[in-house]
Amino acid sequence: MYRTHTCGELRAAHIGQNVTLAGWVQTVRKFGSITFIDLRDRYGITQLLFGEELNKELAENPLGREFVLQAKGKVNERTSKNPQLATGDIEILVQSFTILNKAATPPFTIQDDTDGGDDLRMKYRYLDLRRQAVKKNLELRYAVNRAARNYLHENNFMDLETPFLIKSTPEGARDFVVPSRMNPGQFYALPQSPQTFKQLLMVSGYDRYYQIVKCFRDEDLRADRQPEFTQIDCEMSFVEQEDILAMFEGMVKYIFKAVKNIDYTATVERMTWENAMWQFGNDKPDIRFGMKILNLKSAFTVGGKLLATGELINGAGFGVFDNAETVLAISVPGCSEYTRKQTDELTDWVKRPQIGMQGLVYIKYNADGSLKSSVDKFYPEDKLRAIAEAAGAQKGDLLLLLAGREERTRKAMSELRLEMGKRLGLRKEDEFKLLWVLDFPLFEYAEDENRWVARHHPFTSPKPSDINVMIDNSPVIENAEKYLEHPYNHIKANAYDMVLNGNEIGGGSIRIYQRELQEKMFAALGMSPEEALHKFGFLLGAFEYGAPPHGGIAFGFDRLCAILGGSESIRDFIAFPKNNSGRDVMLDAPSTIDDKQLVELSIRLSVDNVGRENA
Amino acid sequence: MYRTHTCGELRAAHIGQNVTLAGWVQTVRKFGSITFIDLRDRYGITQLLFGEELNKELAENPLGREFVLQAKGKVNERTSKNPQLATGDIEILVQSFTILNKAATPPFTIQDDTDGGDDLRMKYRYLDLRRQAVKKNLELRYAVNRAARNYLHENNFMDLETPFLIKSTPEGARDFVVPSRMNPGQFYALPQSPQTFKQLLMVSGYDRYYQIVKCFRDEDLRADRQPEFTQIDCEMSFVEQEDILAMFEGMVKYIFKAVKNIDYTATVERMTWENAMWQFGNDKPDIRFGMKILNLKSAFTVGGKLLATGELINGAGFGVFDNAETVLAISVPGCSEYTRKQTDELTDWVKRPQIGMQGLVYIKYNADGSLKSSVDKFYPEDKLRAIAEAAGAQKGDLLLLLAGREERTRKAMSELRLEMGKRLGLRKEDEFKLLWVLDFPLFEYAEDENRWVARHHPFTSPKPSDINVMIDNSPVIENAEKYLEHPYNHIKANAYDMVLNGNEIGGGSIRIYQRELQEKMFAALGMSPEEALHKFGFLLGAFEYGAPPHGGIAFGFDRLCAILGGSESIRDFIAFPKNNSGRDVMLDAPSTIDDKQLVELSIRLSVDNVGRENA
Repeated sequence: MYRTHTCGELRAAHIGQNVTLAGWVQTVRKFGSITFIDLRDRYGITQLLFGEELNKELAENPLGREFVLQAKGKVNERTSKNPQLATGDIEILVQSFTILNKAATPPFTIQDDTDGGDDLRMKYRYLDLRRQAVKKNLELRYAVNRAARNYLHENNFMDLETPFLIKSTPEGARDFVVPSRMNPGQFYALPQSPQTFKQLLMVSGYDRYYQIVKCFRDEDLRADRQPEFTQIDCEMSFVEQEDILAMFEGMVKYIFKAVKNIDYTATVERMTWENAMWQFGNDKPDIRFGMKILNLKSAFTVGGKLLATGELINGAGFGVFDNAETVLAISVPGCSEYTRKQTDELTDWVKRPQIGMQGLVYIKYNADGSLKSSVDKFYPEDKLRAIAEAAGAQKGDLLLLLAGREERTRKAMSELRLEMGKRLGLRKEDEFKLLWVLDFPLFEYAEDENRWVARHHPFTSPKPSDINVMIDNSPVIENAEKYLEHPYNHIKANAYDMVLNGNEIGGGSIRIYQRELQEKMFAALGMSPEEALHKFGFLLGAFEYGAPPHGGIAFGFDRLCAILGGSESIRDFIAFPKNNSGRDVMLDAPSTIDDKQLVELSIRLSVDNVGRENA
Repeated sequence: MYRTHTCGELRAAHIGQNVTLAGWVQTVRKFGSITFIDLRDRYGITQLLFGEELNKELAENPLGREFVLQAKGKVNERTSKNPQLATGDIEILVQSFTILNKAATPPFTIQDDTDGGDDLRMKYRYLDLRRQAVKKNLELRYAVNRAARNYLHENNFMDLETPFLIKSTPEGARDFVVPSRMNPGQFYALPQSPQTFKQLLMVSGYDRYYQIVKCFRDEDLRADRQPEFTQIDCEMSFVEQEDILAMFEGMVKYIFKAVKNIDYTATVERMTWENAMWQFGNDKPDIRFGMKILNLKSAFTVGGKLLATGELINGAGFGVFDNAETVLAISVPGCSEYTRKQTDELTDWVKRPQIGMQGLVYIKYNADGSLKSSVDKFYPEDKLRAIAEAAGAQKGDLLLLLAGREERTRKAMSELRLEMGKRLGLRKEDEFKLLWVLDFPLFEYAEDENRWVARHHPFTSPKPSDINVMIDNSPVIENAEKYLEHPYNHIKANAYDMVLNGNEIGGGSIRIYQRELQEKMFAALGMSPEEALHKFGFLLGAFEYGAPPHGGIAFGFDRLCAILGGSESIRDFIAFPKNNSGRDVMLDAPSTIDDKQLVELSIRLSVDNVGRENA
C-alpha cells in the first residue's frame, strides 16, 4: 500500500506517529524557506509541511497542482489550527516524498466554482469528477443505492437480474436494438424496463423482487433526459394497491433517514389524478406550498353555498371570461401590494411563447379589505370579494386569473403557480413533501389513430370495479367525436405515482394477471391477436399457468438522487452522462465502426458517412 | 394483502389463530370426504385440510396443480406431524377459499427431478424457475451478491455506475454494437467490461470502486458461455499486488462464511503461472488433490541428486520417450492393482480425439515394493523405481505417463489428472480450495500476425522490475523464428488470477498509469499512434492529469455462484439465460424488427430474411 492513512484520517491523537500519505496536490504555498502543501484524496485534505532541507529538493522537482504525491513524515500539532478542516489540528512534517505521477495543468480549475464550461467539463469528465461538488453527488447516489437495498433486503425482496439482450416490442418509446451476428437479420433490443421479466418472476413465485438496473430509451432527448438511466425496479405478489403504497413510502422514508437524516414521520398525502389536474394544473403537484387553483367555470361550493357553473364571472360583460372554456385563479399570499410594474411583468411572463396566454387578470385583496382589479370595470367589489374568497384568498393576497382553452390554461396556470412559489421562496430545497397521485385514467385517446393508448403501460390493471367494464365492452370507438362517452374513457387504472416536490420520482400499478383481460388490453391498444401473440406470447402463456395477483413500482433513481441532492439536473448525479445529442463527448461515442464489423453483422449503412463509402 | 402469513411461517405457536394464506397448489390428496392440499409459496409449504362441507365446494371447483389459491382458516395441530417440513407441526383447517387464478397442466412437472428436457424448460423458464432446485440457485446468487456488497461497503468501496452505451474499441473479443438513430451511421458498443471507466474513476480520485455489472461479449458460444454475463468489478488506488490479494481473498472468505457458513481460515495458496503450467498442466489448477505432474524430460532433483534432462528415460531403446519433446508422469494413489482391462480403458480414454494422445504408459508400484510396467522390456526395475519415486509415488500407486509435443501433452496430462481425481472422488463438491496464480507472462506471441498480444488486457502493467525492459526495447519482432528470445517474451505481468476448485473465478492486475508506458503497450500490440489516440485518447489524456497507481480485479459472478452451488453450469444460476446459439427461446429473441426501425436507424440488412425483402 502506498499509504498508511488517508488524507481525511489524522487527528490530534495521531501526533508523534510516523505516517505515509498519498494523494493529489491541491495547493502549494511557499513561505520563504518552507512550503505548505494541501494533499487531497477522496477522504479529505491534510496539510504537509516541507522544511528547509526538503525545500531544496522541492525546488529541483517542482510540484504542480494535481500532481500525485506520496509523502512520509511525522504527525505534528499545528501551531494555528484550522477548525474548518477535519484534519485541521495536525500537519505532516515531511521527511521524504515521491512524485508518483505528474499532472499537466488542468483545462479548468478543480474547485466547487470551476471556470470550466459544460462542454469542457464533459470532455474531461474524469477531472470534473474530482470536484467536491460532483463527488458529493455521487456519494449521495451511493448512499441512496445502499439505503434502498438495505430496506428492500430487510423486507424480503431479492435482487434478481433480468436480461439486457431481449426482444424488440416497441410500445410507446423507441427501442435501442442490437444486431445479432449469430442470427443474421435479427436483432436484440435493450430493455426500456424489466417490466415483463419482473412479472414473470412473480408468476415463478419469487414474490418480492427488486433491481437497481439500467434501462434504455431511444427518445429525442429533452434537456434532462438520458438515453440510459437507472431504475429502482420492484414487484410484489399477493398485494393490493394499499400494500404497495405502504411498502414504498416506507422505503422513501427510510432513504430520507439514512441519507439526509430526516425523520419523515408525516403521513404521505394522497390525491386523485383528477384533483391534481384541477387543483394544481398537472399530475405531479408540488405541495410544499398551497395556491390551489380554482376553476371559476366549474360548479363549486363557497361558504356552504353551491354556485352554478361560472356563476361568479359570467354575464358581467367581460367577454374574455364569458367566452373562455376555462377561467382559473390562484391566490398568491402577501402580494396585494404588487406595483403596476410588477403585474405588467407577470403579464409579460404569461404571454411568453413557452406559456402562451393572451393576458393576465389580477385582483388585489388589499390589507384593508378593499379590492382592486384589472377588470373592476366589469366586476363590482362584492363580486371581486366573492371570487377572492372562493379562491381562498386572505387580506393582503394577490389573485391571478388566466382564461382560455382548458388544457392550455391549466398548463399555464400550473407554470404560473410554480413560478410564484419560486419567487416567494416557497419551494425550499431542504423541504421534502411526498405525495401519492392515484386513480389515473387507464386509457388516453389517440386522436390521430382513433384508438386508445395505455396511459401507464399495457400491463396495468383497471380498478377492480372497472374490470368488467373493460371485459364487457368493445374497445372500438365507433364515433371518434364522441370518444368521451365511450365506457373505456371512464376506466380508472389501478396505478399510482409518487411525487416529491413536484417531480414524479416513482410510478407503478397493480398488474393484469389474467390472460383474458390482458388480451382485451392488447386489443384495446389496436394490436391484432397475432401481433399480441408474436410480441407478448410468453407473457400470455405465463398467465395460463397460475399467475398470482401482483403489482409493483419503479423509481427513477437518477431523478430521486438529484432531488435529494437539491438539484434540478440528473446529469450532475451520473458519473459518465451523455449530452443532449446522446453523445459521450469524453469517449467520442457513438462512432463509426469497422466495415468488418458491419459485414459480420449482416448490415449495411444507408447513409453516407465521413470517411466511408456507402455500401 | 392477500395473506396474513406466508406458507413457510406457521408453527405450533400459531395454533388456534385465524390466518389467510395464498400460494400455489403443489399436491391434492383426497381421502374419502376430506381433502389435503399442500400450498406452496417462496417461503415453504403448508398443509391445508378441507373438511366435509368444503369438499363439496371443491368438487364443484376442482383444484389442479399450480392453481393459485387463497385459503382462510384456523391453524390446527397436526395429528401426525411431519418433521421434514418447517410447518410440519400444523395444518390449516380451511373455512373458505378463493381460486385466484387457474393453471393449465404444466408442460413438465414442477419438481426437483423434473421430466422436462432442457429446451422445454428454457421455453417455459417461468415454470422452471418454480422448481426448488432452481430457486435455491437464485437464492444463493442473491446471497453472494449481498455478501459481496456488504464486504465491499465495509471496506470503503463505492458502487459507481458506468455507462452501457460506449465506444466500440474491439480488442480481443467482439463488441455488440447499437446503431445510433440520432447519429446516423454511428454506433455505440456495449461494454465487454467497465475496465477503462473504472480506471478513469481512479484518476478521478474515487479510490475504491465496485460494481456488480452486466458485461457483453459477442463470441461464438461454447457450452457454458453467455453473451451477457455478470462481473463483480473492483478497482483500488494506491495499491500494489499484495494489497489486492489480501483484500479480495478477504472478500471470497467473507462470502464463504455468509453464504455457506464455511470458515475458510487457511492461507490462500499461491503458485506461479510457470509452476501451474508444469505441475498441473494448466493455469487454473484444481488443488483439492495432488498428483502433481513430473516432467521427465526436464532436469530435476530427486533424493538430493540433480538429474540431467531426460536422464531417467533417455537412451533405453524406447523410441517413443527418446523422441518425445515432453514425457509427463503422474502418480495416481492406490491404483497399482488396476487390471489390464482398466489400464486399457485409460489408454482408450487418452486416445479419444478430445485428448488426442497416441498411447499411455503405466508403471505399477505394487504394495510389495515390486514394479510392473507396460514398458518393462526397456526399463529395469530400478529405473522404474527411480521414475516412480521422482514422481512422488508410494507403494500401491499407479504411475501414468504420456509423451509427445509439449503443449498437447501437457494439456492431455492435465485432463487425465482431473479425470483420475474425479474417478477417485478427490474433487469433492463441498470442499473449497482457493489459489492465486501469479506471474503470468505479459505478452503472448501471435504467430499469424507476427506481433504481441496482451495475455490479460492492454492495461495490465508489467512487473515493476520489467517496466524498463518494456520502455527500453522495441516491440518489433525482427526475426519471427526467434521470438522466444525477444526481451518482451520474458516480461512478467503484474497480474493475478483467483482459482477455486480448478475454475478461474477472478482475475485482475495492477494497471499501467503512465502515458508513456501505455503508449508503448499499444505500440507493442501493433496499434499505430493515431489508432491508439482514436480508440483510447480519453485514457491517455487522463494519464496526463495526475493518475494514481491503481489496480483491480473482476470476478465472474455467474461462475462463482455456480461453483459455490456445486454446479458446473452457469446457466442454472441465471434467471433468464440464453441457449448456445445466443437465443432466448422463451422470448424468441433475437427477432426481426420493423422496416420502420431499420429506416430510422439508417441501416439495411445485407441478408435475405424470412418474410422480408432484402433492401
